[in-house]
Amino acid sequence: MSTDLSKFIRNKAFLDKVVTAEEAATWIEDGMTLGMSGFTLFGEPKLFPKALAERGKKEKFKIDLFTGASMGPAADQSMAEADIINLRVPYQGNPVQRKKINAGEIFYIDQHLSHVAESIRQGTYPSLDYAIIEAAAITEDGDIIPTGSVGNSPIFLDTAKHVIIELNISAPPEYEGMHDIYMQSAAGENTREAIPIFEVSKRIGTPGMKVDSAKVRGIIISSEPDIPSPLFEPNAETQQIADNLLSFLGEEVKAGRLTESLAPLQSGVGSVANAVLNGMKTSGFKDIVVASEVLQDGVFDLIDAGVVKFAAGTALSLSKKRVESLGKDLAKYKDKIVFRPQEISNHPEVIRRLGIISFNTALEVDIYGNVNSTHVGGTHMMNGIGGSGDFARNARITIFVTQSTAKDGKISAIVPFVAHVDHTNHDVDVIITEQGYADLRGLAPTQAAERIIENCMHPDYKQQARDYLAAAKERGGQTPHVLEKAFSWHTNLAEKGTMLIK
Amino acid sequence: MSTDLSKFIRNKAFLDKVVTAEEAATWIEDGMTLGMSGFTLFGEPKLFPKALAERGKKEKFKIDLFTGASMGPAADQSMAEADIINLRVPYQGNPVQRKKINAGEIFYIDQHLSHVAESIRQGTYPSLDYAIIEAAAITEDGDIIPTGSVGNSPIFLDTAKHVIIELNISAPPEYEGMHDIYMQSAAGENTREAIPIFEVSKRIGTPGMKVDSAKVRGIIISSEPDIPSPLFEPNAETQQIADNLLSFLGEEVKAGRLTESLAPLQSGVGSVANAVLNGMKTSGFKDIVVASEVLQDGVFDLIDAGVVKFAAGTALSLSKKRVESLGKDLAKYKDKIVFRPQEISNHPEVIRRLGIISFNTALEVDIYGNVNSTHVGGTHMMNGIGGSGDFARNARITIFVTQSTAKDGKISAIVPFVAHVDHTNHDVDVIITEQGYADLRGLAPTQAAERIIENCMHPDYKQQARDYLAAAKERGGQTPHVLEKAFSWHTNLAEKGTMLIK
Ligand SMILES: CC(C)(COP(=O)(O)OP(=O)(O)OC[C@H]1O[C@@H](n2cnc3c(N)ncnc32)[C@H](O)[C@@H]1OP(=O)(O)O)[C@@H](O)C(=O)NCCC(=O)NCCS
Ligand SMILES: CC(C)(COP(=O)(O)OP(=O)(O)OC[C@H]1O[C@@H](n2cnc3c(N)ncnc32)[C@H](O)[C@@H]1OP(=O)(O)O)[C@@H](O)C(=O)NCCC(=O)NCCS
Repeated sequence: MSTDLSKFIRNKAFLDKVVTAEEAATWIEDGMTLGMSGFTLFGEPKLFPKALAERGKKEKFKIDLFTGASMGPAADQSMAEADIINLRVPYQGNPVQRKKINAGEIFYIDQHLSHVAESIRQGTYPSLDYAIIEAAAITEDGDIIPTGSVGNSPIFLDTAKHVIIELNISAPPEYEGMHDIYMQSAAGENTREAIPIFEVSKRIGTPGMKVDSAKVRGIIISSEPDIPSPLFEPNAETQQIADNLLSFLGEEVKAGRLTESLAPLQSGVGSVANAVLNGMKTSGFKDIVVASEVLQDGVFDLIDAGVVKFAAGTALSLSKKRVESLGKDLAKYKDKIVFRPQEISNHPEVIRRLGIISFNTALEVDIYGNVNSTHVGGTHMMNGIGGSGDFARNARITIFVTQSTAKDGKISAIVPFVAHVDHTNHDVDVIITEQGYADLRGLAPTQAAERIIENCMHPDYKQQARDYLAAAKERGGQTPHVLEKAFSWHTNLAEKGTMLIK
Repeated sequence: MSTDLSKFIRNKAFLDKVVTAEEAATWIEDGMTLGMSGFTLFGEPKLFPKALAERGKKEKFKIDLFTGASMGPAADQSMAEADIINLRVPYQGNPVQRKKINAGEIFYIDQHLSHVAESIRQGTYPSLDYAIIEAAAITEDGDIIPTGSVGNSPIFLDTAKHVIIELNISAPPEYEGMHDIYMQSAAGENTREAIPIFEVSKRIGTPGMKVDSAKVRGIIISSEPDIPSPLFEPNAETQQIADNLLSFLGEEVKAGRLTESLAPLQSGVGSVANAVLNGMKTSGFKDIVVASEVLQDGVFDLIDAGVVKFAAGTALSLSKKRVESLGKDLAKYKDKIVFRPQEISNHPEVIRRLGIISFNTALEVDIYGNVNSTHVGGTHMMNGIGGSGDFARNARITIFVTQSTAKDGKISAIVPFVAHVDHTNHDVDVIITEQGYADLRGLAPTQAAERIIENCMHPDYKQQARDYLAAAKERGGQTPHVLEKAFSWHTNLAEKGTMLIK
């Protein structure tokens, strides 16, 4: 009993375009540029990338792959394993692809997530040959209804020469109406209007993405489930970090700089973020609005707990438990959640206007507050800067969290000089570890250094940090350093397996 | 024959507030926070700071000093010499004050220029006790007409407990009407409107700055001339840099990414900027709009040459020649120039919307395109980040220029790892030296490194850079480094007086 597709493809012009993933994959030629939907493993095509990777195992070809952000194993991993990726933009998080990036086998640009659409619009990237977009439905007017993320799909559909739609008939129908698609026109004088977002929950665009039906070369039918992400249960340390962050926010309320509903909130993914959202259930804050990039389990829990009244982002990132209950959940959250393009959710204009509070996780922080979000040891990519720069530069309060040590204490997350800089201390207001928090606002570099060392560092590393700062201060300067020792902790780790300087 | 002040003070309520600078200086108490007008030596109070410094030579007291940007010798230098500055925000450029900052005698925060007003609005700085603002006139409604800069004066007037106006009766009357004062309300949902700038020349605010007349405790009468900045005539190298930049822009026009009128332009101050503006007289570009921070001699020259049709900024920075002809000039340029608060001229919302092209000068660039605009040797402050971050992060095209070497070749401006990061390579599109330019757009780090080394480095340093990159690549990673050698050029300079590794 073949499914009645007209329930999903409600515009006749699209009905005769159904193809298999294998056939669609044959259309891709060596050197092409592809734009795929997908962000933190939600809303990505699932059959097409696998089919393309299969082809890649038999034929030699390479493509440039643009997405919203990270894709799952069936996509990012299988295409990497088949060696068909030449350039990857703007974000990924897959261990296999990561290894190839760090081996120089895949060129990778971790661009600010809000910049990708502007670069495409200006023509500084090769123009897209194909856009491959997962959809929950095609409307009567031929608009494409996304699934669990929007990402860069609108600009991909708008600029690609050809379009392939992967229609996921198992996607919860409640997705329809949860998206707010707004496209910016070209930058310039009298060419672009202001982004009309003044209230997070108020729609400014359309529920579906426009596409020129003549460009749609094929529609693949899939019924693949969404891909879950591991849910890191808080451990003692991440719980302590969460408590420290919540007490900092409490101090801001007490100082009258924030109210009980704080300000619109952005949080990164990961264990600390979940522990913080978890802690908010009982922290006394209420009527919270989330204006983030990624909406994770903790946001759903806070809506259930009546603490979060509305949440906007560009994608979901959910645990196995939440993926399984998504159909039921979405009906419950339909009028509490909206998904926008990442260019809009992460736009400086929106972030500055709403006065968002941002917290993300750092790999490494230095004593002056500079942050490394991406490069282990300054050379090897973990995931990418993602949207952390969009929010860090423009948020009302920019918070970076990290455990004070990593690898069982062999690594101090706070070092004299980060081995890679993603965020300069101009953009960093508060550092939080399980040891405590350092509010750097209004402090000159040497004052900030003392506060970070005393409040945030693990006791095992405090003295060698104090010694470094003292020696550096003897040489003077606005930002004192002993340059020949700036990376000595990193080299000590490489040579002796620990940053502890005996 | 005393001047008839009513020509300048056209609101009766202010007429009885005239005081001497000496008297006004006595109102300042130890620990107070002052907000002074002033930006690149234009629009600053001239008598008051000198009088305060004089008091400082006799009595011990310290103040926190906020401005728009850099002040002249009579202000930044005399107050520094009198040791009355505890904290200095957000930018300075005076050699005497610089020395005290680098000696740790003055705390200094070089904040992004567009962030200062937001921090004041949110109350993360101590609230201002006094705003001391230079004015060309006080209107019938009691509004304050600025002189050669706006900077942060509006937020200072709005939030300070007390106000002192320094009325400069020698300021050209043409200043009146050249300002466009627009103040943002608090950030939040439904609290702040979009900044209504869609065309650089269209006013969105008022010609004068609002002030509560009850807060105005005194008006000092001055007739001090504006303070000139040295005009660096282009030398062979800066001319070559300018030519390389103009040929890059020409390529963008040929590629169809820009038109003959390019896009609104922002340029930093300094010799290269002037050489570029100079070169534009004959480069064939026309109907250029300048949407910058600082308007310098070159902008006036291009208006005269009919190349620039309009110029907006937050301040002037003019040579002796131009200061002397300012009275005459302003009449000529009155409808071609507008001054806005730095929060607006440098706002991400405006820069992204207009698609501004930005070029500023770097102290140091590394092989991966990270830029150091502020710290010599990574420790000693030169001036500050200024607005370079506001523009670098949000511009349509972000260009950094530098001579390939400094100090007669003993220093390479391109190094393996900048000793201080102000701008990460996410924000940097093009590097230009007298050797050539490197367009980094669409390149992964290792591709960018090859292009910077081959196109931009001075021949004397190329081989040691190739050697570093080759050794780094053996260790692999997205951004290869030999961490223990990353600062070896800097330490070689410190120990042997040259970065040349024999
Ligand atoms: C920084 C980032 C990698 C941290 O991820 P996380 O899962 O929250 O934190 P973890 O503590 O689990 O660290 C992740 C890994 O980095 C390692 N790590 C953490 N700090 C480290 C350090 N200073 N040096 C070396 N390795 C470190 C951990 O050991 C762990 O390794 P493993 O995966 O092999 O076990 C992640 O937040 C990220 O990619 N951020 C950039 C993107 C971003 O912020 N986007 C904004 C919104 S999503
Ligand atoms: C970077 C900056 C200092 C360059 O200034 P400039 O006058 O254009 O360039 P110069 O080549 O004259 O360099 C200024 C000084 O730095 C020194 N210098 C330049 N590059 C250097 C390097 N790599 N290492 C050490 N010193 C260096 C020069 O020798 C010169 O020293 P001196 O003043 O003692 O002679 C200046 O552009 C700045 O302060 N920028 C930050 C603010 C900004 O960009 N604002 C945006 C718009 S105004």
